[in-house]
Amino acid sequence: MAPTPTRDDKFSFGLWTVGWTANDPFGAATRPVLDTVEAVHRLSDMGAYGITFHDDDVVPFETTQRDAAERTRILDRLRKALQDTGMQVPMVTTNLFSHPMFKEGAFTANDRGVRRYALRKALLQMELGIELGAKTFVMWGGREGSEVDVAKDVHGALSRYKEAVDLLTTHIVEQGWDIRIAIEPKPNEPRGDILLPTVGHAIAFTHTLEHPHLVGVNPEVGHEQMSNLNFTQGIAQALSAGKLFHIDLNGQHGPKFDQDLIFGHGDLINAFTTVDLLENGFPGGGPAYDGPRHFDYKPLRTESTEGVWTSAEANMATYLLLKERALAFRADPRVQEALQQAQVTELATPTLAEGETLADLVADRTAFEDFDADASGARHGGQVRLDQLALEHLMGAAS
Amino acid sequence: MAPTPTRDDKFSFGLWTVGWTANDPFGAATRPVLDTVEAVHRLSDMGAYGITFHDDDVVPFETTQRDAAERTRILDRLRKALQDTGMQVPMVTTNLFSHPMFKEGAFTANDRGVRRYALRKALLQMELGIELGAKTFVMWGGREGSEVDVAKDVHGALSRYKEAVDLLTTHIVEQGWDIRIAIEPKPNEPRGDILLPTVGHAIAFTHTLEHPHLVGVNPEVGHEQMSNLNFTQGIAQALSAGKLFHIDLNGQHGPKFDQDLIFGHGDLINAFTTVDLLENGFPGGGPAYDGPRHFDYKPLRTESTEGVWTSAEANMATYLLLKERALAFRADPRVQEALQQAQVTELATPTLAEGETLADLVADRTAFEDFDADASGARHGGQVRLDQLALEHLMGAAS
Amino acid sequence: MAPTPTRDDKFSFGLWTVGWTANDPFGAATRPVLDTVEAVHRLSDMGAYGITFHDDDVVPFETTQRDAAERTRILDRLRKALQDTGMQVPMVTTNLFSHPMFKEGAFTANDRGVRRYALRKALLQMELGIELGAKTFVMWGGREGSEVDVAKDVHGALSRYKEAVDLLTTHIVEQGWDIRIAIEPKPNEPRGDILLPTVGHAIAFTHTLEHPHLVGVNPEVGHEQMSNLNFTQGIAQALSAGKLFHIDLNGQHGPKFDQDLIFGHGDLINAFTTVDLLENGFPGGGPAYDGPRHFDYKPLRTESTEGVWTSAEANMATYLLLKERALAFRADPRVQEALQQAQVTELATPTLAEGETLADLVADRTAFEDFDADASGARHGGQVRLDQLALEHLMGAAS
Amino acid sequence: MAPTPTRDDKFSFGLWTVGWTANDPFGAATRPVLDTVEAVHRLSDMGAYGITFHDDDVVPFETTQRDAAERTRILDRLRKALQDTGMQVPMVTTNLFSHPMFKEGAFTANDRGVRRYALRKALLQMELGIELGAKTFVMWGGREGSEVDVAKDVHGALSRYKEAVDLLTTHIVEQGWDIRIAIEPKPNEPRGDILLPTVGHAIAFTHTLEHPHLVGVNPEVGHEQMSNLNFTQGIAQALSAGKLFHIDLNGQHGPKFDQDLIFGHGDLINAFTTVDLLENGFPGGGPAYDGPRHFDYKPLRTESTEGVWTSAEANMATYLLLKERALAFRADPRVQEALQQAQVTELATPTLAEGETLADLVADRTAFEDFDADASGARHGGQVRLDQLALEHLMGAAS
Repeated sequence: MAPTPTRDDKFSFGLWTVGWTANDPFGAATRPVLDTVEAVHRLSDMGAYGITFHDDDVVPFETTQRDAAERTRILDRLRKALQDTGMQVPMVTTNLFSHPMFKEGAFTANDRGVRRYALRKALLQMELGIELGAKTFVMWGGREGSEVDVAKDVHGALSRYKEAVDLLTTHIVEQGWDIRIAIEPKPNEPRGDILLPTVGHAIAFTHTLEHPHLVGVNPEVGHEQMSNLNFTQGIAQALSAGKLFHIDLNGQHGPKFDQDLIFGHGDLINAFTTVDLLENGFPGGGPAYDGPRHFDYKPLRTESTEGVWTSAEANMATYLLLKERALAFRADPRVQEALQQAQVTELATPTLAEGETLADLVADRTAFEDFDADASGARHGGQVRLDQLALEHLMGAAS
Repeated sequence: MAPTPTRDDKFSFGLWTVGWTANDPFGAATRPVLDTVEAVHRLSDMGAYGITFHDDDVVPFETTQRDAAERTRILDRLRKALQDTGMQVPMVTTNLFSHPMFKEGAFTANDRGVRRYALRKALLQMELGIELGAKTFVMWGGREGSEVDVAKDVHGALSRYKEAVDLLTTHIVEQGWDIRIAIEPKPNEPRGDILLPTVGHAIAFTHTLEHPHLVGVNPEVGHEQMSNLNFTQGIAQALSAGKLFHIDLNGQHGPKFDQDLIFGHGDLINAFTTVDLLENGFPGGGPAYDGPRHFDYKPLRTESTEGVWTSAEANMATYLLLKERALAFRADPRVQEALQQAQVTELATPTLAEGETLADLVADRTAFEDFDADASGARHGGQVRLDQLALEHLMGAAS
Repeated sequence: MAPTPTRDDKFSFGLWTVGWTANDPFGAATRPVLDTVEAVHRLSDMGAYGITFHDDDVVPFETTQRDAAERTRILDRLRKALQDTGMQVPMVTTNLFSHPMFKEGAFTANDRGVRRYALRKALLQMELGIELGAKTFVMWGGREGSEVDVAKDVHGALSRYKEAVDLLTTHIVEQGWDIRIAIEPKPNEPRGDILLPTVGHAIAFTHTLEHPHLVGVNPEVGHEQMSNLNFTQGIAQALSAGKLFHIDLNGQHGPKFDQDLIFGHGDLINAFTTVDLLENGFPGGGPAYDGPRHFDYKPLRTESTEGVWTSAEANMATYLLLKERALAFRADPRVQEALQQAQVTELATPTLAEGETLADLVADRTAFEDFDADASGARHGGQVRLDQLALEHLMGAAS
Repeated sequence: MAPTPTRDDKFSFGLWTVGWTANDPFGAATRPVLDTVEAVHRLSDMGAYGITFHDDDVVPFETTQRDAAERTRILDRLRKALQDTGMQVPMVTTNLFSHPMFKEGAFTANDRGVRRYALRKALLQMELGIELGAKTFVMWGGREGSEVDVAKDVHGALSRYKEAVDLLTTHIVEQGWDIRIAIEPKPNEPRGDILLPTVGHAIAFTHTLEHPHLVGVNPEVGHEQMSNLNFTQGIAQALSAGKLFHIDLNGQHGPKFDQDLIFGHGDLINAFTTVDLLENGFPGGGPAYDGPRHFDYKPLRTESTEGVWTSAEANMATYLLLKERALAFRADPRVQEALQQAQVTELATPTLAEGETLADLVADRTAFEDFDADASGARHGGQVRLDQLALEHLMGAAS
């Protein structure tokens, strides 16, 4: 039996996840529209602590653009549901990809009018986020990219991307807001190639900005796995660099369309090491993650609304099971011994001794001239034992 | 007929490319060892301007470690060949992956003795590079990674990576050397997952360093394509960020083992846009690349030595053909008009007008409240025409 | 300049291609509905010889189910357009994937009622195909698959698939119809894993059927490339086995969502060898393809209707350019000589001499005991020269 | 704790697995050569029931070719170890890929002399297999393919492949041998594209042969996953078609180089459904697998010989754990109920009722005209519940 989730677990869901009506590129919706207020209540009852949303998830695009009064009315309903349940809104994000106007990009559209609109739409949603207490503003640039290399000036596009983010962060600083921006990378879909396709590219981009400390990443399991990259390793680099501002948990089966499966229902071993990193941190110490455990998934199109709630519960249950196993893994004395044997803990020790200089190292014949390279080549790695211990803990078979 | 290469084309080859004896994981060498001096002369005769090498390509591992005199003798032979031909050495690199001692990593090995050895070996080769006039020191960390997530402390590993690069760049600064480090990313092979797997991850890492201006990237066509990423877009981001220090040209057919095909013999359209970027720069202006056009490929294992030279020539011929076509593409008035129509050139214009503030934008009703989103969504992209013009230019069929 | 298409080129288009209104999983339609009759006329004017369609492309799902009179009226309009233009309908196919009822499969749905409905819908469309002169009935089983292995009995599913195809082919035989079924494989999307994911799996399946000679495959460029398989090699196996009944030409950039790019706008070299195979056949003789050159692509979502027609033309132009180049490649005496040198033509010669038995081979010491394996290992492959000749012909640079 | 393996579990290992000295394309061997006899004894002690081998794994290539007496001496040592331990040889295979002579193919080499040699070498090993009691002769055509499409006549190549297999199977029939051939598909590596790249392509090929009942497939987990295909679904099709003659169990992380990880150490959920299929068969009945559980993996290069044996044990332990969990999954009444709810069991029921004809179906208005398609589209799939039940059983958390 999986443990029962509580608010302390910090589980949050995008309203667009349970609310997905299950239309896809080859088929029509199979489920009715889900009322936002009902979603908040159901998720609250299940043990989630928060919800997140794009502007368009709650207020129709046209209403946001043209009918401020109706927008307020709709948002008031949401506010009441949040108050009634005590649910939080730890993150908000803007939809800059669904409306046809964004077909060629938003912040990086060739068309300047589209870029200006995108800025306005993002700012409006960020203001709402501030009001609702959100600490993270996610930017997924799903349309920022191209199918045709010669139709996109990448330097121009990245310059405009920078302009947009700089304007927003400068505004954050000027307003004294307590919110940070998290860029969500994705390699492709809906565009043939999306700018900032991986966690690495997105972090690199943040260093070109005016306020880099305000901009980090929101990695999504499936998005990195669409490039067949190791998700745990990717978020480890982000965490190590102080850039893991938020996380999107789900499942994927390698390089194919964006599946948005339930967390753990793709690469289960990688899900285990992801939870291990989020809950236990690096084995040799270092930065730790304390943000929401946010699920960004799609309930299978085969399911009716009943299956929507089953799948929402499955995300949390799987996370909690993996957490239980990861804690037991780290607590197992055999694991501690195997980590020692595999020298994993030695990486926390600098390569040069305290006070040692490069010149000292050059003068140290034991480091090079007299080093027994062959003996070193024959040393025992001890990685297989660790791997199997992890797998048996994951399977609840370690005792 | 392809144009004939000249030294001005700045073509360079790794000695390990033409020198590969064609052993692979499933088979023995099919070609005899190629003498280094012969390789320099043959490549010079063909029109290349330079060669590059790992220490172990020229001097055996054991000799480098233990027999300085023999090392000098071997290197003198190489120096003479360089003098005789006028060939340059624009880049050098260290082999920290072949010897069994590096099986679990080099700069990021769990074993501290290995890390110290790696630093010494790298420094020795960098000194040789300085002596030979190399301006770039490439670091490909082929063994920096893992197959077992729980056997690698990624924060520790990146901290040790940083320590190593910081020591080398501090030394460069102290010595007043005119050389920069270029990290070469690769997602996997030989390790299951390699740290800094893409151009993005590598650039992100450089921003954690003490001397970030001295550390950039050396992207390789095939390495990015092994993650099914768009190579041209990747180097465009690197170039835009001032991080494209060097480039490795070859060919690959998507996510599979590292094929190291002849440049252009993989994704030809992407090779075309890569050459277009290297030769013509961004369409709206920006940083330009002026370094070597370096081939890092493997002559097919089916070929005898005759095929080695045919393939070396094919790399240069293909590049020069693509360059010819890229120049014609940019010169075609129809292309200029199509670029206008597709608004590609508009990306160079900032989103906010000169002097305009975010507050001004918020006050501009034409930017949002009164913007005709539907008309914008129906606008003509004009990308297909550009795409087909590029393809017909590439095929020499545009006139 | 690309050659102008004529009806002899046998170019056909799916009505769903130019008719795609450009909604995708992350965005709404960007183009208005295209009238079927206009599409037929425009494609005819451009030089296509035929159109193809799913039932639902022309007649709404509900109309097909419940309003036979309205269906007749709609189809009469189409018939008139065909008569007016002389356009043919060489292939038809059924939509068993868009309606929510097919969310869990059609011929292989767990639900028996759905399977029965699917059979009826397919039969109705096949009858229409017969009436319109179609020679091929394509079956793309986009929903035949699963995201959850334990929720699908694969043996049961393949048995039901066989039942459906057997019923249809038996009916074809009994009616004396001149039509064959072509299964279109795809590895995934919209389902997580689709049954019969590649050309190979589909051909293998045909051998379990009652009338295997009536069932072949309809390979699509992008579908095989979504598994990073070599499309030319795949259709070569199909052609060699007498199973290449139809073909879907388009473009794709490796393992990602189904891009349906213009033919040639993905892997251009592979598009060249595909056209070479379709136009020139196997170099040593064998079965040849004589069916339609059918385009199954999607005009980029960035384009207005103008771009739809530009892209339709681009498909044909690219094919004809590649054909021109492939003919020149085969006619080049240097290519003939290089083929000889690479021993490509020797594969048409059986391994055993005429009349030779296995016992004779065993007795032939020159074949084994006295064979000079080392000399054989050192022989010249000559593949690079062929590869570069092909590339230069493709680029129009061979003379 | 994982269960202890016994001979009844039918675990077998390739001698080349534990015997791999861990050289790879970028590095030298890290482990000493393992004596064949020691390997047999160690594997026997661990609970394996058999070993398998390529000719060259036991007898050097040159010895096989030229020194029959020495070959006998070497083989006698192996025979004694088999007798001493009671270990079986359920399968043998030939190495037609390591020697440089096979660089361009073996049975499908352009060079006819190579093809003749390959036949002789294969026949010799098959005779040895017969003598040792092997029931399966695996053919992995690692070099049968190309990097250059225009350098391979695929129809010629498949014709020569057929010629080779036909000669061998005809010989089997004539000799009355009790052995079958299993083709092992792989998409690439070492060749750019290998012929018969997937289970599907290989099965399709068997239907072009003279004795198709004697030729099936030997799917390898990692090889199918290198094309990002669902391994369980692939072997399910093979099993359903009576073609699953043998199986190679290991682990892989999607489309990259051939990793040959320990079984289960890649996609664990798919490993679970694979074991479920092998142990429990199809949920609705059908063909079952009764052959060896053969491991074809490589102990990580980081490991010394100690790690070799740890990894061999890990393969068996993981299989047995998964078997335990798969048996519990099928025995769980909640699972039975969920299978019913998801209608999984309904697939065993034919779509047409007993005696019903296609004409009857057409006359049945409830099947089409009066069918409530909307209600059907809204039905509950129940797949998520099954998926989560499977995951919790896999994790030992279902009770």
